[in-house]
Amino acid sequence: MIIPNFDDVLEAEQRIKPYIHQTPVLTSSFMNELTGAQLFFKCENFQKAGAFKVRGACNAVFGLSGDKISKGVATHSSGNHALSLSYAAGRRNIPVTVVMPRTAPDAKKAAVKGYGGVVVECEPSTSSREEVFAQIVAQSGADFVHPYNDPRVICGQATCSRELIENIDGLDAIIAPIGGGGMISGTCLTVSNIAPDLKIYAAEPRNADDAYRSFKAGHIIADDAPNTVADGLKVPLKDLTWHFVSNYVEDILLASEQEIIDAMMLTWQRMKIVMEPSSAVPLATIIKNKELFADKRVGVIITGGNVDLNKLPWNMA
Amino acid sequence: MIIPNFDDVLEAEQRIKPYIHQTPVLTSSFMNELTGAQLFFKCENFQKAGAFKVRGACNAVFGLSGDKISKGVATHSSGNHALSLSYAAGRRNIPVTVVMPRTAPDAKKAAVKGYGGVVVECEPSTSSREEVFAQIVAQSGADFVHPYNDPRVICGQATCSRELIENIDGLDAIIAPIGGGGMISGTCLTVSNIAPDLKIYAAEPRNADDAYRSFKAGHIIADDAPNTVADGLKVPLKDLTWHFVSNYVEDILLASEQEIIDAMMLTWQRMKIVMEPSSAVPLATIIKNKELFADKRVGVIITGGNVDLNKLPWNMA
Repeated sequence: MIIPNFDDVLEAEQRIKPYIHQTPVLTSSFMNELTGAQLFFKCENFQKAGAFKVRGACNAVFGLSGDKISKGVATHSSGNHALSLSYAAGRRNIPVTVVMPRTAPDAKKAAVKGYGGVVVECEPSTSSREEVFAQIVAQSGADFVHPYNDPRVICGQATCSRELIENIDGLDAIIAPIGGGGMISGTCLTVSNIAPDLKIYAAEPRNADDAYRSFKAGHIIADDAPNTVADGLKVPLKDLTWHFVSNYVEDILLASEQEIIDAMMLTWQRMKIVMEPSSAVPLATIIKNKELFADKRVGVIITGGNVDLNKLPWNMA
Repeated sequence: MIIPNFDDVLEAEQRIKPYIHQTPVLTSSFMNELTGAQLFFKCENFQKAGAFKVRGACNAVFGLSGDKISKGVATHSSGNHALSLSYAAGRRNIPVTVVMPRTAPDAKKAAVKGYGGVVVECEPSTSSREEVFAQIVAQSGADFVHPYNDPRVICGQATCSRELIENIDGLDAIIAPIGGGGMISGTCLTVSNIAPDLKIYAAEPRNADDAYRSFKAGHIIADDAPNTVADGLKVPLKDLTWHFVSNYVEDILLASEQEIIDAMMLTWQRMKIVMEPSSAVPLATIIKNKELFADKRVGVIITGGNVDLNKLPWNMA
């Protein structure tokens, strides 16, 4: 396990700068009144490819050297990492292959192809995915860019909280959603180096609370197939993200499905921004833990905005 | 008819500054590629009360003097003007009464009340509305703030394009939706004074094309009851707004209902912002008149973001 350090983050920052947005930080007097805190929303929904994941993907892709470049990259994902890696590879003009279950939505497959990625379908099972993916890598020699358990990816994600801390003075806390832990690990890496007094909270759906239970138990607990509207947060922690979570996170807070949907709808209504369900989990936990954040200056990372407008969760009842 | 001048705009700008947002201007490489133009989206959907109308409402409310202050303001509207006037009156702590048809959505009535406004219901007919409204004004002595045919309101709206022109250098054109013509009139007032070479386009739903037909005929033509998804744009021009439209607008461009819905959905998907159907009409007309805007720097006014998330037009088929 290679644990990245803050110099790697600074290197990532320079490397990815030409390919990503410095995303805006929005405030909302309504949200401040509602929560009793001062919230600073870091809007990665406005990021290239619609999510923070493009930071890590760009760092991995633009860090390739030698004959690795021509062999390209590969991953398995049906979410924002697939899109982001395709975007990054497209910008460097190298091959990218994404293994996706054949049952993944056509819109996701089309979006990957839209960025120039090659989609290879597998059966919707872990064994099929691993088999197909191993074949791809063996044939192409492509570099595997894991969605989160990869130091290059974590260093890319770490640039997000760095921007936030540089833009907003005197933050007391940062809160971000947790799934596999890539964003939270990057946040830990940055905060522990440049703002060690700042508290880091992770927000997780109660329906996929494996990180919460891991955190309380002191070792990784992986769920088999959690089901939550926050579909970016179903994956488990791995060794590298567990290192950061177990060492630097203040606490993990949980929200129910309804609380997540309510927070998402409230954000769309009041802040007029489109964000995906995963991004609503932090606000949902702030609303239900007001005493923890009262009068505090809190950075809230809105992780992405890729959502199917034909299937909004408040219309699914 | 009192025609305001640019000094009135500068006065409005100072008057309303403490109560409104200087809204951001967003760009989108996707939209630029799609249209072949360079588009600068002035995001009044992020404005207080969710729409540009708060500019005119604040100018009217904070310009009141003498015993007019304690008597407050009144209007008839079931849209953004009702919300905006209630917000403005609430900030000045003066009474505000809004006459609304009893058939207006409960959410709209609740929003007005949420800002401290008094809702008085009428029957859903022009005669009932006029009768009820006349009664209110006679009893209270409240100042009638018309949604658009009022120099105070037009001067407030004029501050929007002034911000846009100050933020973005070298614009070739500005385009905004047209209903009653308040925003377009304000735009004409600003542009004709500080950037007279800049062309002004108005965008209108084909299903409510009374401004288009008026423009072509050379006199006001009012439709009886137009029906369009862009529900902020159903009202007709009046004498003051006609003055500006007939003198300063380059052309009025039309879009079908489907084109409006498509442009709205595309904006939500690609720019991750929530905007109402009226705000999508300009983009819809740019997409279908590419040659007119090719390689031009175009300011696009996104007028508001108040939309019922339970009744999105692409889910209504």
